[in-house]
Amino acid sequence: MPVRHNHISQVRRIAVVGTGLLGGSIGLGLRAAGYTGSIVGVGRRQETLDRALARGCITEGSTSLAKAVTDCDFVVLATPLGAFESTITKLAASDLTNVVITDVGSTKRAVCDMAARLLPENASRQFVGSHPMAGSERHGPDHADAALFAGRPCILTPEADTDADALAVVESFWQMLGMKLLRMTPDEHDDKVAAISHLPHAVAVLLVELAAAFDGLNVASTGFADTTRVASGDPAVWQGIFQTNREAMLHTLDAFDDRLAAFRKLVETDDVEGMLALLKSAKQTRDGWCKPTGDCGDKNTKENH
Amino acid sequence: MPVRHNHISQVRRIAVVGTGLLGGSIGLGLRAAGYTGSIVGVGRRQETLDRALARGCITEGSTSLAKAVTDCDFVVLATPLGAFESTITKLAASDLTNVVITDVGSTKRAVCDMAARLLPENASRQFVGSHPMAGSERHGPDHADAALFAGRPCILTPEADTDADALAVVESFWQMLGMKLLRMTPDEHDDKVAAISHLPHAVAVLLVELAAAFDGLNVASTGFADTTRVASGDPAVWQGIFQTNREAMLHTLDAFDDRLAAFRKLVETDDVEGMLALLKSAKQTRDGWCKPTGDCGDKNTKENH
Repeated sequence: MPVRHNHISQVRRIAVVGTGLLGGSIGLGLRAAGYTGSIVGVGRRQETLDRALARGCITEGSTSLAKAVTDCDFVVLATPLGAFESTITKLAASDLTNVVITDVGSTKRAVCDMAARLLPENASRQFVGSHPMAGSERHGPDHADAALFAGRPCILTPEADTDADALAVVESFWQMLGMKLLRMTPDEHDDKVAAISHLPHAVAVLLVELAAAFDGLNVASTGFADTTRVASGDPAVWQGIFQTNREAMLHTLDAFDDRLAAFRKLVETDDVEGMLALLKSAKQTRDGWCKPTGDCGDKNTKENH
Repeated sequence: MPVRHNHISQVRRIAVVGTGLLGGSIGLGLRAAGYTGSIVGVGRRQETLDRALARGCITEGSTSLAKAVTDCDFVVLATPLGAFESTITKLAASDLTNVVITDVGSTKRAVCDMAARLLPENASRQFVGSHPMAGSERHGPDHADAALFAGRPCILTPEADTDADALAVVESFWQMLGMKLLRMTPDEHDDKVAAISHLPHAVAVLLVELAAAFDGLNVASTGFADTTRVASGDPAVWQGIFQTNREAMLHTLDAFDDRLAAFRKLVETDDVEGMLALLKSAKQTRDGWCKPTGDCGDKNTKENH
């Protein structure tokens, strides 16, 4: 039975459930940052575990969650959201005394509710929802990258009854991977992320479908490639995201539809001043956002116009 | 008075009206490709002409279109669309015998109609609409790039009465800049480009506005940067594009709105299979498009998920 910790450096054995792009990158990143404990990869397919092991993402692999978490102090759920319910249910059957649990799920209300519902009360207080804002449209441990999380925001969604030491362990874990931490409530997280990630993803998918229907792909160039890049992401991952962030998605889809109607009106009525004001406002907002973060990757990127 | 030509290599003097990113890149690209004739930059502001001259984008500069086109065999309109009407009107007052004219405008029906309406009949047959599918969200001659057009598609929209030699000159001009040529009607061009460029631009602008309204920019990362990159483009350029491609824009906006409503239904009704089918279809379409073109720049690009 693990003892209580309040920093990731005290943790000697970490279970990473799911060793794809994110789980693999966590392992690589921890080791690159000097972590010397064991990193146990947990997965359904031995082949994926073997590849993760070969790439140095994990120090050992297991297809049995129950076996893997024995003696682990820290568990990271890094599967697609669709596997969370069965994983947390299995975890709940293990001895979780002093085990800190976090996740990488892109939605937080549904995940935190699931943890509260499925885990024993003591264990659920040791669960801290996390959303590391990093990823790629590619997946699998072969694309894992030790620097995937470096400098990116990570949102933590502790609740009123979250154990303070567990929160400290999870914070130090993401900090070890170089992430910039933010805290907010699960609902606040879901709304914001719907606006800056889930809605843009939906829109990119629909733009690809529409461009194909208009037989326009043969003239599409870098601007189209940029705008739709996320649409090459993993369908299973995104289905899970849209499903578990249903309310916020509906809300942002409606807000977007209102804006689309207003834009249509500007075109239809040939409102030159209104159109210029909108385009200037968006440019100013985006350029202002790009400048301080400095990591929006706009340098050397060409596009259609 | 110029003699008739059928290849850009025979042209000894080119007027480039507008020496911003596109006009400047045309000049740099021609010179990089070995063009040894004169390249006369035409602009309203001496300062921009001086910068274009200093960067080697042009061999001489003039603030007088009438003076600049004297003895030119070839004129390229490279201003924002909003300046086309006054430029073509001024051109029409010059002797345009055997002068070939083309443009870089992002819409073609309105531009070709303008040329037919404003130019004398002989001169209008020497006008060939072009849309080089290359650009950047940055503007001005300081960002001009000799390789901006290389390998990119360029759509030409000759009409039934277009002079064959003029078309040959324009084709050889874009080929000298390394572009891959496509021909279509102005209407076909406008529909396709609305789908793959103008609608995506509108959507990117609206996503930026929505993300700001939802106070989400502090957690936005590379995926958002990619999806919205085009929204940092020049407002005046894009106002002109939307205005001159009004019909196709309204058509694609409506088609997009239908798809948005269908997507909302998938979320609302928790249609897992329907959602997966849509996401898989879009991924397959985009990946299939990316692979043969190979220039969609997806390598080494990270994003949110």
